[in-house]
Amino acid sequence: MILEMVVVQVRTGMGADYERAFYESAHLIAACQGYLGHRLLRCIEIPDKFVVLVHWQRLDDHVAFNQAPQYQLWKSRIHPFYAAPSVVEHFHTVAAGGTSS
Amino acid sequence: MILEMVVVQVRTGMGADYERAFYESAHLIAACQGYLGHRLLRCIEIPDKFVVLVHWQRLDDHVAFNQAPQYQLWKSRIHPFYAAPSVVEHFHTVAAGGTSS
Repeated sequence: MILEMVVVQVRTGMGADYERAFYESAHLIAACQGYLGHRLLRCIEIPDKFVVLVHWQRLDDHVAFNQAPQYQLWKSRIHPFYAAPSVVEHFHTVAAGGTSS
Repeated sequence: MILEMVVVQVRTGMGADYERAFYESAHLIAACQGYLGHRLLRCIEIPDKFVVLVHWQRLDDHVAFNQAPQYQLWKSRIHPFYAAPSVVEHFHTVAAGGTSS
């Protein structure tokens, strides 16, 4: 399992609209091969900053989504809210603990 | 529930040592009031980059840890691995889905 992490800076004051567009489009990701789960997080200190976490079975599953037709629909709905290109990286878990990790 | 996110760049080649120090010191966080869980993630694209996610009941619980005596011990064990000051921010979840979000 790998974690895709996307750091997003939305255009000033567009946070609620971005949240709505994300909510209405999340099914496009959720339908993908290898999708396990996602979370959209909003920064407390910088309200126009968001982080998207997506768990995939394999890195290739995320690559396949970026090459699939539904990615173009995702992009057309979501990217207009970006104030700058998002930063996308992938991580694997090396340690975890507690009941809500 | 809030999520503390710490982005860490460790000194070149020190990733395994940082992981070990983190593993051996995680109990200092886990014992805190309001701690719910944590995860240490290592970046696939940039192997000296890590992200620490800590779930707290409230933002004040994290603030209290930073003011507690055990934070000094944590700092003395963990911060020597940092190549630069870490970036610490807090988030709240605005949307989630799937079985592993």
